[in-house]
Amino acid sequence: MATQLSHVAQQDQRSQFHPFTSINDLKAEGPTVMASGSGVRVRDVNGKEYLDGMAGLWCVNLGYGRQEICDAIAQQSQRLSFFHTFNGMSSDVVAECSEALLARAPVPMSRVFFGASGSDANETQLKLIWVYNNLRGKPEKKKIIARWNAYHGSGVATASLTGLPGMHTLFDLPKGPILHVSAPNYYRNAPDGMSERDFSRQLAKELEALIEREGPDTIAAFFVEAVMGAGGLIPPPEGYFEEITPILKKHDILLVADEVVSGFGRLGTYWGSQTYGYEPDLITSAKGVTSGYFPMSAVFISPKVWDVIEAGADKVGVFGHGYTYSAHPVGAAAALAALKLIDDLKVVENVADVGPYMMQSLRDRLGQHPHVGDIRGKGLMLGIELMQDRGTKQTFPMANRTGRQVLKAAAERGLITRALGDTLVFAPPLIISRTEVDEIVDKFALAVDDVLKS
Amino acid sequence: MATQLSHVAQQDQRSQFHPFTSINDLKAEGPTVMASGSGVRVRDVNGKEYLDGMAGLWCVNLGYGRQEICDAIAQQSQRLSFFHTFNGMSSDVVAECSEALLARAPVPMSRVFFGASGSDANETQLKLIWVYNNLRGKPEKKKIIARWNAYHGSGVATASLTGLPGMHTLFDLPKGPILHVSAPNYYRNAPDGMSERDFSRQLAKELEALIEREGPDTIAAFFVEAVMGAGGLIPPPEGYFEEITPILKKHDILLVADEVVSGFGRLGTYWGSQTYGYEPDLITSAKGVTSGYFPMSAVFISPKVWDVIEAGADKVGVFGHGYTYSAHPVGAAAALAALKLIDDLKVVENVADVGPYMMQSLRDRLGQHPHVGDIRGKGLMLGIELMQDRGTKQTFPMANRTGRQVLKAAAERGLITRALGDTLVFAPPLIISRTEVDEIVDKFALAVDDVLKS
Repeated sequence: MATQLSHVAQQDQRSQFHPFTSINDLKAEGPTVMASGSGVRVRDVNGKEYLDGMAGLWCVNLGYGRQEICDAIAQQSQRLSFFHTFNGMSSDVVAECSEALLARAPVPMSRVFFGASGSDANETQLKLIWVYNNLRGKPEKKKIIARWNAYHGSGVATASLTGLPGMHTLFDLPKGPILHVSAPNYYRNAPDGMSERDFSRQLAKELEALIEREGPDTIAAFFVEAVMGAGGLIPPPEGYFEEITPILKKHDILLVADEVVSGFGRLGTYWGSQTYGYEPDLITSAKGVTSGYFPMSAVFISPKVWDVIEAGADKVGVFGHGYTYSAHPVGAAAALAALKLIDDLKVVENVADVGPYMMQSLRDRLGQHPHVGDIRGKGLMLGIELMQDRGTKQTFPMANRTGRQVLKAAAERGLITRALGDTLVFAPPLIISRTEVDEIVDKFALAVDDVLKS
Repeated sequence: MATQLSHVAQQDQRSQFHPFTSINDLKAEGPTVMASGSGVRVRDVNGKEYLDGMAGLWCVNLGYGRQEICDAIAQQSQRLSFFHTFNGMSSDVVAECSEALLARAPVPMSRVFFGASGSDANETQLKLIWVYNNLRGKPEKKKIIARWNAYHGSGVATASLTGLPGMHTLFDLPKGPILHVSAPNYYRNAPDGMSERDFSRQLAKELEALIEREGPDTIAAFFVEAVMGAGGLIPPPEGYFEEITPILKKHDILLVADEVVSGFGRLGTYWGSQTYGYEPDLITSAKGVTSGYFPMSAVFISPKVWDVIEAGADKVGVFGHGYTYSAHPVGAAAALAALKLIDDLKVVENVADVGPYMMQSLRDRLGQHPHVGDIRGKGLMLGIELMQDRGTKQTFPMANRTGRQVLKAAAERGLITRALGDTLVFAPPLIISRTEVDEIVDKFALAVDDVLKS
């Protein structure tokens, strides 16, 4: 295959160190190089077209080449190509954007802090949490709890929060005052015969036991994704948040909702927290805020946290945190266009309709497949976990790389999916139609059979 | 002043938490809200025009509204609004961009790793350094040395690298295996009568003593800016890098050049390392790579480091690090346009001409001012340190906020500068003309006198 690489693929192969890529695979196979995109489809440099079942990296929610966002970016670049918000500076679009975001928050929020990525936003969260407890006179209350299989970013601290061994081992992580509790993985981890609700209770007990073992006065915050994304597409079992949140309240622990993937409609509600009915003290958002057209993140700060920071303003002085690209005017213009489109195109309503349709279609088509163990998710965030034996939940040998084989077979058929081990994932643009969903399900089912003749 | 705030300023004030801003100042004064920019100038929502002596945040190197970059952004947004480089994916512009960057490196480099900010790039560096030493079988060789007054970012780990107490205290930083040595601040810290060269030798001795005290086998890397930026605009004393680099070589310690500010021409050479003649093992770049029009960072990895990572590919597996906005195609298109303009407009040559002219003009105009203690810097990265008494180097009382007063007086006169304590800083767009430099110097000298009648 390497001999057929285009000139541009060779350029890439010899010059770029790819994120989340196997060096050996890249050397053996070369990169797949995209050249253009429109709606739910992208096209590579060889002219091959793909339906992008992952919306880039769960982010191109409004599809590729959406004119309104492109226009907003083009016009703002020309008008004010850059400005910052250090030292009390700002720009008009940023002011408008921060207000538009607050107006869309799931619970009343006081302020927005901007950045350029979900990772930098979660770094911001950690620093805010520590400042908050220092200002409250609780300097011992600093430990952070996240969950195994969580994905919260790739900085040193945020990769530590992330609960994936592949992001820890070679990097000497986790570092810092970070603890992990079990993933709410009902399919894989619940004892046989236990109800979802009882599994949720068990997880809540584990959390409370950890808090009491460490001392509640040492625990500052708990990070959650609504549905776990990169860690295996894991929706919470029934009652999970109902069981968890009273424990956090009781022990004065902040709830940080990482809505980087779930925010802006992906689960069929505007925010993931609304799907599951919990109220965050801090929200991390990114990706969907600009539909991936421009790197932007937004941290939402509740009155509970903001009031403490504001009251401590004398002590804080110049708040010693921020990024050059915090509140980039072009990002703000892109976000304003995206937020308007989410409303105008009734994107959330579309997800509430097409999401369940896609789930049902996958179950109808693959629910009885001997190598399909579980089909799960919410809205347009769905995962299909492959099993060597669905009855005994016997997994395929890791060395087979079964998930990756299916991903490659799907790509051959012009469909992009993502393999998290042997769980194949879909998170298509939120503007996808039922007909396009039919195409995903069809191509995917054929790809599964290409690899796993039943 | 607060009663005169425009609608948009009020929006901003009540909704945005500003980076590196005093909450009290923002409450009392409201934000300054920009609306447009062209060339070296920006205009606020009230129509007031400013010459931007800081190029945004030392980043808008090619000036505002530069047509070629705006066009590249507009066209690429339309063509491929987003794509990623996870799992061996890429896009054509990214491949071209990574090769264009390697071709411009100051020393032979093997690979580029992309991100969206200088902070995320330095988080990448830390993780690369730890992987590198793990793969070399040196798991104890992990500590990182940076310098007091350094600025290396705002993530938890990169703010720890940063050597500024205002970014540490309330945030419980530094965290992690990070050590600091003295800033190479000749003006403030050299003993009376010591030559620059001897001061460099003293700093080198301090560094080596720290290395030996900690044990060379525990020290992985040393981070440097060519000229320290946010920490006070501190150029290295004569011979500094000549004295430092042999110590690093001797103890097998990587030299990481943080070129976020100095890269792409700011010091009058393409890279800061070329101004001072040192050879980095890893380079961090951002800002100027897109002239600030699009958030992008690029880490350059030398053969020394890359060969170890590549040889360890089996052990590494899927490299567990990366950002959604690593290698954004629109950023790559912006970078390609910016790199071409740097060449076509002979930007580096302009800095080599205008930088010394600006330094000389500042010295001619303010060199004898009783409250100007030091005028320093390199290329278009210049600082003017104010003193209550220049003879005794007696500083103004902190509470006077003298630097901030001068900054405000300059803003009144339509000039943007930056106050790092009482050091006022200029880092204008690199395309600035001598005439525009005259305007900066003129307005600035008047602003100094507005505050400090001599």
